[in-house]
Amino acid sequence: MFYSINQLVISMIYTNELKYDNGLIQAIAQDRNSKEVLMSAYMNKEALDLTIETGIAHYWSRSRQKLWKKGESSGHIQKVFEIRIDCDKDSILLMIEQEGGACHKGFRSCFYRTIEGDVVGQKVFDPEDVY
Amino acid sequence: MFYSINQLVISMIYTNELKYDNGLIQAIAQDRNSKEVLMSAYMNKEALDLTIETGIAHYWSRSRQKLWKKGESSGHIQKVFEIRIDCDKDSILLMIEQEGGACHKGFRSCFYRTIEGDVVGQKVFDPEDVY
Repeated sequence: MFYSINQLVISMIYTNELKYDNGLIQAIAQDRNSKEVLMSAYMNKEALDLTIETGIAHYWSRSRQKLWKKGESSGHIQKVFEIRIDCDKDSILLMIEQEGGACHKGFRSCFYRTIEGDVVGQKVFDPEDVY
Repeated sequence: MFYSINQLVISMIYTNELKYDNGLIQAIAQDRNSKEVLMSAYMNKEALDLTIETGIAHYWSRSRQKLWKKGESSGHIQKVFEIRIDCDKDSILLMIEQEGGACHKGFRSCFYRTIEGDVVGQKVFDPEDVY
């Protein structure tokens, strides 16, 4: 547990005030030490409440239409140390510690390519060994 | 201009391959020096092409339903030095240098609060002086 009971109660109230779009809010995961942006995904209120309760990042998978504990199959979980919200309350930023890699392609960050197609990210595992 | 003509041609092609959702793609702006995540907004293809062409971040404002050159009224523009795309090609990350503050509330970053409501961000200007 990374959140105290007191923080938890406050946060659980606060999650009601966020601006969900069709029930979803965008969540950005940033490595709290290196500051690398690791991924961007969506949460529904249940995923956010679970993230706060457990200290482990949960998201909503739009492709699979289900709640998704990040790293459930790969072991590459994300421990959440702080959650920030933006001025419009329609986007959240998770300060995390990432086990292994955030990207299912084996990279530390999902943002491993430039728009020109150059690979600039660090490969940290072989997806064939993990999935 | 931060992009060469060659990069520009490649990028302009590449912007067609991104996965837009109702014509929009999520764009995260990160300070390329401090690594602070400054804001998250949306771009349409026109905004992205303009960003690449000019080296200055342009977005699509959903509330105003118009193209939006960030900093047009405040002077707080964003110079773009690198654009990264994620594994799913449905999210982009801009590595930028921010004039003044990214947030219309006067903070360096829009993510200036924790979900508990604590202000953790740096205030850099008074919105009343700027807007």
